[in-house]
Amino acid sequence: MLKVGIIGASGYTGVELARILCNHAKVKLTVASSRQYAGKPLSEVFPSLQSLEGIVCQDLGTSDLASKADLFFTAVPHQTAMAIVPDLLAAGKKVVDLSADFRIHDPAVYEQWYQKHTAVEYLAEAVYGLPELYREKIKKSRLVANPGCYPTSIILGLAPLLKAGIIDPSTLVADSKSGASGAGRAALTGNLFCEVTEGFKAYKIGEHRHTPEIEQEVSLLADQSVILSFTPHLLPISRGILSTVYAKIVGNISSEKIAALYEEFYGNEKFVRLCKKGTYPATQFVRGSNFCDIGFKLDKRTGRIIIISVIDNLVKGAAGQAVQNMNLMCGFPEDSGLNMVPLFP
Amino acid sequence: MLKVGIIGASGYTGVELARILCNHAKVKLTVASSRQYAGKPLSEVFPSLQSLEGIVCQDLGTSDLASKADLFFTAVPHQTAMAIVPDLLAAGKKVVDLSADFRIHDPAVYEQWYQKHTAVEYLAEAVYGLPELYREKIKKSRLVANPGCYPTSIILGLAPLLKAGIIDPSTLVADSKSGASGAGRAALTGNLFCEVTEGFKAYKIGEHRHTPEIEQEVSLLADQSVILSFTPHLLPISRGILSTVYAKIVGNISSEKIAALYEEFYGNEKFVRLCKKGTYPATQFVRGSNFCDIGFKLDKRTGRIIIISVIDNLVKGAAGQAVQNMNLMCGFPEDSGLNMVPLFP
Amino acid sequence: MLKVGIIGASGYTGVELARILCNHAKVKLTVASSRQYAGKPLSEVFPSLQSLEGIVCQDLGTSDLASKADLFFTAVPHQTAMAIVPDLLAAGKKVVDLSADFRIHDPAVYEQWYQKHTAVEYLAEAVYGLPELYREKIKKSRLVANPGCYPTSIILGLAPLLKAGIIDPSTLVADSKSGASGAGRAALTGNLFCEVTEGFKAYKIGEHRHTPEIEQEVSLLADQSVILSFTPHLLPISRGILSTVYAKIVGNISSEKIAALYEEFYGNEKFVRLCKKGTYPATQFVRGSNFCDIGFKLDKRTGRIIIISVIDNLVKGAAGQAVQNMNLMCGFPEDSGLNMVPLFP
Amino acid sequence: MLKVGIIGASGYTGVELARILCNHAKVKLTVASSRQYAGKPLSEVFPSLQSLEGIVCQDLGTSDLASKADLFFTAVPHQTAMAIVPDLLAAGKKVVDLSADFRIHDPAVYEQWYQKHTAVEYLAEAVYGLPELYREKIKKSRLVANPGCYPTSIILGLAPLLKAGIIDPSTLVADSKSGASGAGRAALTGNLFCEVTEGFKAYKIGEHRHTPEIEQEVSLLADQSVILSFTPHLLPISRGILSTVYAKIVGNISSEKIAALYEEFYGNEKFVRLCKKGTYPATQFVRGSNFCDIGFKLDKRTGRIIIISVIDNLVKGAAGQAVQNMNLMCGFPEDSGLNMVPLFP
Repeated sequence: MLKVGIIGASGYTGVELARILCNHAKVKLTVASSRQYAGKPLSEVFPSLQSLEGIVCQDLGTSDLASKADLFFTAVPHQTAMAIVPDLLAAGKKVVDLSADFRIHDPAVYEQWYQKHTAVEYLAEAVYGLPELYREKIKKSRLVANPGCYPTSIILGLAPLLKAGIIDPSTLVADSKSGASGAGRAALTGNLFCEVTEGFKAYKIGEHRHTPEIEQEVSLLADQSVILSFTPHLLPISRGILSTVYAKIVGNISSEKIAALYEEFYGNEKFVRLCKKGTYPATQFVRGSNFCDIGFKLDKRTGRIIIISVIDNLVKGAAGQAVQNMNLMCGFPEDSGLNMVPLFP
Repeated sequence: MLKVGIIGASGYTGVELARILCNHAKVKLTVASSRQYAGKPLSEVFPSLQSLEGIVCQDLGTSDLASKADLFFTAVPHQTAMAIVPDLLAAGKKVVDLSADFRIHDPAVYEQWYQKHTAVEYLAEAVYGLPELYREKIKKSRLVANPGCYPTSIILGLAPLLKAGIIDPSTLVADSKSGASGAGRAALTGNLFCEVTEGFKAYKIGEHRHTPEIEQEVSLLADQSVILSFTPHLLPISRGILSTVYAKIVGNISSEKIAALYEEFYGNEKFVRLCKKGTYPATQFVRGSNFCDIGFKLDKRTGRIIIISVIDNLVKGAAGQAVQNMNLMCGFPEDSGLNMVPLFP
Repeated sequence: MLKVGIIGASGYTGVELARILCNHAKVKLTVASSRQYAGKPLSEVFPSLQSLEGIVCQDLGTSDLASKADLFFTAVPHQTAMAIVPDLLAAGKKVVDLSADFRIHDPAVYEQWYQKHTAVEYLAEAVYGLPELYREKIKKSRLVANPGCYPTSIILGLAPLLKAGIIDPSTLVADSKSGASGAGRAALTGNLFCEVTEGFKAYKIGEHRHTPEIEQEVSLLADQSVILSFTPHLLPISRGILSTVYAKIVGNISSEKIAALYEEFYGNEKFVRLCKKGTYPATQFVRGSNFCDIGFKLDKRTGRIIIISVIDNLVKGAAGQAVQNMNLMCGFPEDSGLNMVPLFP
Repeated sequence: MLKVGIIGASGYTGVELARILCNHAKVKLTVASSRQYAGKPLSEVFPSLQSLEGIVCQDLGTSDLASKADLFFTAVPHQTAMAIVPDLLAAGKKVVDLSADFRIHDPAVYEQWYQKHTAVEYLAEAVYGLPELYREKIKKSRLVANPGCYPTSIILGLAPLLKAGIIDPSTLVADSKSGASGAGRAALTGNLFCEVTEGFKAYKIGEHRHTPEIEQEVSLLADQSVILSFTPHLLPISRGILSTVYAKIVGNISSEKIAALYEEFYGNEKFVRLCKKGTYPATQFVRGSNFCDIGFKLDKRTGRIIIISVIDNLVKGAAGQAVQNMNLMCGFPEDSGLNMVPLFP
C-alpha cells in the first residue's frame, strides 16, 4: 500500500480526496494537515467521514510531515503551494499539486495574473496533469500540476477541434458556470446559503485567473497564440461545472465528421463520455464521478459550433483528476478508486 | 376601476398576473379562465392567493368570457392565442397577449419557427410590447404582443450599443440562463424537483423559438439584418434570467463612454437599473420585481464587450411587463402596481 | 410622514424592514445604522434596494442618531438592544425592538436563558408584540418587544386551543423547521451554501433560547405553568418557518368544533389564514408576505391534534410583524405597507 | 457472479439499485424491466448510467423475464408486487421486494391501510428486511420485504430504547422529513421543481401508509401494542430522511447510560453510526451512503428523550438496504458493494 498524505485537508477538495482515497485499493491515507483544525480528527471536521478512523489533522508546520507518506496531494492556496512543494520533492516524495503554482509554464505570465513566483526552477519539470493530453509525461513525473476546474472542462471540450484545425481560435468564447464548492469553504458573506440559493451571477468577467491556464493549453493545441473570452458564473448548486464554448467553424464540415473527431480523440478514454447527436450533458449526471461528458451542436445558420462540456468540479475538476494523476505516476490502473457511478438524483 | 381578465390563469404567468393585479389601484380582476381547473376558485389552485376572493376559474369556451372584462391578458400557448385574440378584439376589448403569436412581424419567419399563422391580418397592428423601445406605439395600441422572457433580457442589454453602432452585430453570442418557472407548470418528468435541483444544462441550442424574436429586434436596432447565436440553459431556481451577451467592439471606445450611452438610453427608465462600474447584476436582486439590471465589462484584451442583463422572468419577463403595457395602453401611471421591491434574501 | 430609523440595517431583518418601508404610505425611512457598513449606501449593501436613494449606513455610535427619526426598529443582537433602547425612549422615541431583550417578563427567566439583564426597569412596560393577542396594549405602548420567529408560529397555532382548554398543556411538543435566513447574515462556516443545501438537521434541541418565550405565552394562554419540548431544525430554504405542534386532546371534541374555535379566534384577523379541512399550509405559499397560515389534523386514533403553522420568518416572524406593531402604535391602518401577496413560485 | 434483475428500473429506486450493483463484485445486472421505457437502454433513461452497457429495458410482461436472473429486486408499486412475486418464487428465484406488500404480517392490518391482499400465503415466510433486527432470518429467506424509508429511520432510532424498556411507548411522536425522491419519479404537478424548491410542507398527517409498518415493529420491540403519531414532511432536497422522535423517559436514567445502550445495540453494526454526545446527525453527511446516523438528547427539563435518526432514503431507505439483504440471502459479505463514503458537499 502506498502511503499518501493530504496537505490542506479541511477544504472541499480535501474532504473529496479523503472520500475517494477511502475506497482506493492501492493506497492508504496516513496523514492529513489543516492549520485551522489541527488536533481534530478529520472524521469530526467532516461527519461524512465518520468511518475514517485514525486521521487527526496536523499543523502544516509539523517538521516530520514529509516522513509520513510517499506521495502528497497539496490542496492549499497558490503561493502556499510553492513554499511547500520544493521541500516535499527534496525529501524524495511525489507531489500532485492542486494549486495554480505549477500550471503555467511561463513565469512572466504567472506573475502577471498571480504574484511573484518563488520556485520557478520547478516549472520546467512540472507536468500539466490532464491525462487525456499528457498521459505519458505524467507517468514519468514526480510533480504534477493538477489542472483548474474550469480549464479541465474547457480544454477537454475543445481539444479535438483545435487539433483538427476546424475552428477559428480567434473567435473562442467560453461561458462557464460552476457550483459553489468551487469557491471553497472560506466563511465569506458572499458564499452564505441565503446569498447563493435561488440566485445566479457572473463574476471576475475577463479577469479570472484560470484564463492564462486555458489560453496556454488552447494555444498549444492550436499551435498558435490564442486569446479568448472566459466568463465564470456562480450556480446555486454544490458540485458541477458546465462550460458552453462558442467558436466559428472553418470551412465546411458535417456534424458527423465532427462526432468522428471526438470519437477518435476520446474513444479509448474511460473518463470522457460523448453524448449522442441531439443530446447534451448536464451536471447532475456526472455528480460525484470522474467523468467529463461532452456534447456539441453544429449550427450552420450562424457558422458556429457550440460545445457543452460538463464535470463535477470536485472530482474530474480537482480530487478525482488528482487521483487519476497519482495512479499514472505510481503505475496503478488509471481508474483505481475512480469507478464511482454518478449519484443521480 | 378597469375590469381585467386573465385567460390561462393556472400557469405560473397566470398566478403572477393575479399577484400583481391584487395590488393594482386602478384595476379589478373580474374573470380568470383555466380549462384544467374550471369550477375551482383561483385561491385554491394557488394557496398563495387565498386572500383573493371571488375568482372562480372558468372554462375558456365560456361564450360570455369577453363580456366580463375590458382588457384581457392572454397567457396561453402560441397557436391557442391566435384563435382567441381576434374574437376579443372584435368584441372591443384590449389585449395584452403573452404568447409568441403576435411578436414576429413577418409571417414567413413565424411559420418557419412555429407553425402556420391563422391571424396574419393582426400582425401589422400588433405592437411589440417592450416599453423602453416602443412606449408611444404601445400607448395607442389595442393589441400588444408581450415580449418573450429571454428576448427582454437580451434586447434591453444590447439596445444602447446597437443604436450607437459600437458593436459588430455579426459577432453576437447570447448565452442565457433561466429559472425553471420559464418551463411552465406542465407536469413533465424533466421539470421534476429531483431532475432539476443541484443540476444545470443547456437545451434547444441554436434552435430555441425566441431566436427569431431576438433577431427581429436586434436587426431593427442595428438597422441591418442580424443573425446571432442564442443558447438557453436551465437554472435550478424558480425565477430569474441572466443573459451573458458577447460582442466585438468596433473602433476604440472607453468604458466610461459606454456607461454614458447606457445612462443616456435608460436614465429616465424606472425599470432599468444600471450597475456601477466593476459590479454586475444577479438574479436574486431582482426577484419578484419588474426591474432589469444591466452591467457590462469592456475587455480590451479580447476586444469584446460582455453584457450581463438580469430580470425576473415572471415579472419583467412576463406578467410585470404585461401590466406595464396595460398601464400604457390605459393611460395609467406606468408603474402602477409595479413598485414591488425585490425580495432578498 | 412619520420618520423611522433602522438600527442594525445590514442583516436580513434590516433589509426586509427597508423593503417593506419603501412601500409604506405613512412613513419615511430617514436613517439606518450598521457598524460594519458605516459610510456605505444601504443600496450598495443590498443591490435589491438599488432604487432606495439617500440612505447611507451610519455608525451606531453616532450621537445624533435619535434625532433623525420618531420611531426606531432595533434589529440588533440581544444585549446590544438593552444598551440602546433606554436612550431612545429617554429621547422620546417609540421603539419596536426585534431582539429578545424585552420579551421575557421575568428577569430571572431571562437571565437563566440569556445573560444578565441591565434594563429590567423596562420589562414591565414592554408589550409582547403579537397583535393577535395584545392589540390594545400595543396601541398604547412606546416599547414593543417584537416576538421571535419560532414563537410567533407556535403561539398563533396554539392560542385558540389553549384558550378553549381542549388540549393538555403537559403533552405539548413543538417541532419547528426554519429557513436559513433565521440564522442571520454572519459569515460562519455552518451557514455556507454548500453546508446547508441538500441537507437538513436539528440543532439546540431542548435548549433553544426561544423556549422560555414560547412557554411564557403558552402558560398565559393556558392559565397554568407549561413546560414543552421545542426542537428547531434548519431547512435548506431562505425564508419560511413551519411548526408542527403535537398535543393530546382533552375530552371528546369534533374536528368541526375545533375549526370553529379557530374561526372564532382568527375570523377577523387579516394576517391569519385558516386552511380548509384536509389541507395544510406550506412555507412557499406565505413567502414574502405577513400571513400566518394554520391547518390542523384531529387524529382520533392517537388522541392527538397536530397543528401546522406557517410563516415567513423574515415577515410575520420579524420585519412584517414589527411594521404591524408600528402601525398599531402610531394609529395607522394595521395593514399599511403589509399587503404583499405571497411570491409563488 | 450472481445474475440479478431489477423489475421497475426506471424509478429513482431503480436507478439507485443499478448504481450500486455496477460496483458490486459478486453480482451482475442481467435484466431490467420498465413498462414506460421498454426497448430503451437503461443508460439512455438515466444518462448518469451511460457507462452501463447492454441493459435494455424490457416490458414486465415478457414471459422469460424470470429465466434471466437468479435474484430479483422488485421496485414496483404495492399491489403490482403481489402479482409478480409469487411467480418469481415459483420459478425458484430469490426476491427482495421493495414494495409494501410483504411487510405487514397481519393481512387485516394491510387491508385496512392498503387494499385487498391477494398473496396472503406468502406473508408468513416473508422476512422484514431490517438486518440490524432480523439478520439471521434474512440469511435463510428467499423472500425479503425491504422496509419502507420512514420506518427504517424511525425503528433504528428507537430499537435500543424500546428493547431496554426505558421509554413510554404510549408517548411516541415521530416527526419525519423526507427528500423529494421519496415521492418517486411520477410526473405530478406537486413534484415539480417550482412547487418544491424553497418550500416545506407536511402531508398525510396521521394517515401515511408507513404507520402500520412502524407500529408493527415498534410493538414487537416494546412487546406490547403501540400506537404512535407519525407526521411526514416534504423537504426541498433530493435525498435524505431525518426523523425526530419524541418519547417520555421512564424512571431516572442518565445520558451516559442511554449512550451505552445504543453502543451495545449497534457497536458491531457497520451501517449504524452513533453521534458523540452533544452532536446530532444531518442528512448531508449520509448522502449516497448506506449509513444510518443516530443522535439523541435527554431533556431532563421535560422528561423526554429526543432521537434524531438520519438516512439516505434511496440507499439505507431503499436500494442500499435491498442490496444489504441480498448480500445476507446469498452469503456475500454484508457490505459488498455498499462501501460508498457519503458525498459531501
